[in-house]
Amino acid sequence: MTASSTKPLLNVLAREKTPLPPWWLMRQAGRYLPEYRAVRNRIGSFLELCLSPVLAAELTMQPVRRYGMDAAILFSDILILPYALGQALEYRDGTGPVLEALAGPGDLGRLNAVDVLSRLAPVLETVERVRGMLGPRTALIGFAGAPWTVATYMVEGGTSRDFHRVKSWAYGDPLGFARLMEMLTEATGELLAAQVAAGAEAVQLFDSWAGVLPETYFVRWVIRPTARIVAFLKDRYPRCPVIGFPRAAGVLYERYVTETGVDAVGLDPTVPLGFAVARLGGRAVLQGNLDPVLLLVGGSSLEAAVVEMRHSFAATPWIFNLGHGVLPETPVENVATLARLLAAPEPG
Amino acid sequence: MTASSTKPLLNVLAREKTPLPPWWLMRQAGRYLPEYRAVRNRIGSFLELCLSPVLAAELTMQPVRRYGMDAAILFSDILILPYALGQALEYRDGTGPVLEALAGPGDLGRLNAVDVLSRLAPVLETVERVRGMLGPRTALIGFAGAPWTVATYMVEGGTSRDFHRVKSWAYGDPLGFARLMEMLTEATGELLAAQVAAGAEAVQLFDSWAGVLPETYFVRWVIRPTARIVAFLKDRYPRCPVIGFPRAAGVLYERYVTETGVDAVGLDPTVPLGFAVARLGGRAVLQGNLDPVLLLVGGSSLEAAVVEMRHSFAATPWIFNLGHGVLPETPVENVATLARLLAAPEPG
Repeated sequence: MTASSTKPLLNVLAREKTPLPPWWLMRQAGRYLPEYRAVRNRIGSFLELCLSPVLAAELTMQPVRRYGMDAAILFSDILILPYALGQALEYRDGTGPVLEALAGPGDLGRLNAVDVLSRLAPVLETVERVRGMLGPRTALIGFAGAPWTVATYMVEGGTSRDFHRVKSWAYGDPLGFARLMEMLTEATGELLAAQVAAGAEAVQLFDSWAGVLPETYFVRWVIRPTARIVAFLKDRYPRCPVIGFPRAAGVLYERYVTETGVDAVGLDPTVPLGFAVARLGGRAVLQGNLDPVLLLVGGSSLEAAVVEMRHSFAATPWIFNLGHGVLPETPVENVATLARLLAAPEPG
Repeated sequence: MTASSTKPLLNVLAREKTPLPPWWLMRQAGRYLPEYRAVRNRIGSFLELCLSPVLAAELTMQPVRRYGMDAAILFSDILILPYALGQALEYRDGTGPVLEALAGPGDLGRLNAVDVLSRLAPVLETVERVRGMLGPRTALIGFAGAPWTVATYMVEGGTSRDFHRVKSWAYGDPLGFARLMEMLTEATGELLAAQVAAGAEAVQLFDSWAGVLPETYFVRWVIRPTARIVAFLKDRYPRCPVIGFPRAAGVLYERYVTETGVDAVGLDPTVPLGFAVARLGGRAVLQGNLDPVLLLVGGSSLEAAVVEMRHSFAATPWIFNLGHGVLPETPVENVATLARLLAAPEPG
């Protein structure tokens, strides 16, 4: 990969050294920001927000204007894909997303993969708009949910505690489940490619529930679909970096970075820094992994953690991020403190 | 440790070879059994069941009678300790346990550690009763929740998605939080020692939420309290094996087995078998780690997984178990199938 751009994030993704670690935050556009809540309260439906290019572009820009992160990430949601495939989807306050659950291969006929990109035209328009609004130092990240994680929502009908419905299908009927995963893998690749075509300069694949699978199934339903999507994107856009985020993959982070071909890997907060540098950093640019609760708590605990991260990751290409999304209860001034800690020439 | 007893489980815990892997299942006494549901429906309150020695002993024995596991595990609950400390506790169907949450160190005065063992006398009587009911080949396992996991329930007031209340306290006020952890560490040691005195032949520490902490805090709130409890027990009962279960600890399983002094370690379903054998098996007897959904699904997927486990763990001291509790939806005949697969002289 060649970079040396004006954008520090893209340079680090090309394994170039930068004087300071570039940074962005998962869910940096979100409920902790008063300007986000102002828009959200005006537009009742979260799905409507995701499909309104003017508003979604505004929400994407809000944290960048306030804090000057090195990247904007498209304001959207990983469940926009099931929506585009024709699955009924509703976001309920408090309980989270509710989908009309797929019970098995017999329900696959309810999905329609043909019109995905036309149904997602507003999302692609958001990407175009944001790209036009960004300054010369800020990169634009597109994203999608990884097929396994999206499948968990589609089969469980929402979030889950033990994932027994989706695992029962995946373990008990691997051929039927492969049809769903095949459809998701192809559509995800197309969606990400369309985002790149619209102006995204890097993409992230969120596999939030990668960490619930035993190794055999992790290889089959996390590593293989991810590797296929990466290969598909690299074929079309060889210079677009792909960030994979197999949250809570534990020991299996190592196989993930070795076997998927991702350029960078998102680390959840429980990944030890020493392990990340020694076992993952040679294969992939590291991204992460402050516990979002430390950003919520602030003070000396936040400072100590950031200093430790900067020291531990000093010699390896690294993008600062949280290990999970910003919590809605996070005080806005703590994010300002974080920005200052990351801008200090010496880590402390 | 010296064993060579009539009980295969105790022999493996002493790192002796046995012709077949000994086995038991987390939540083997539970809702998947019709004979359990019959008792549970008669006694509406789960807490009352835990505190009724005759009934709790009966529930403990039910799966052993039906399937002949190599161990009975005391029918109780990890939240019996907060109850004994005086925290209001209620089990609600569907939502799980609800506790009167501790908001900070100012609430510690509501707890009383003095009367713990007298309030838990019925639990100790259950241990005595079960020990008298077991045959010569079946071991009795006592247990408690590990301090970190119990603290999460005490501070969150129940189960949690992001643990931001308990983490905020633990990260933001380490000295105040240490007072709660100190109280829990001492009471847990006393409770386990009393169970051993009453007849438990091994004990397991359930740290179900160990896997949500970054390394720094994992060392402080998981490893150190566990090491103290293990040292306390070994001082009183040098020959009683301790099984630690730091669920979802990922890469940190390695520090856990190296630094806590546990004799055996419970593996969750996501721990790769190769990693467990190579990095953990030399330090601790391995226990686990079939995905409970494979037991629910049954058939060829269950069989293949058990065969793979028996092959992978053939050369190391190993106790078969699930990587998490039996799911209530599990068909009883699948557990019978599992018993047959484990009793086959060759793994297949």
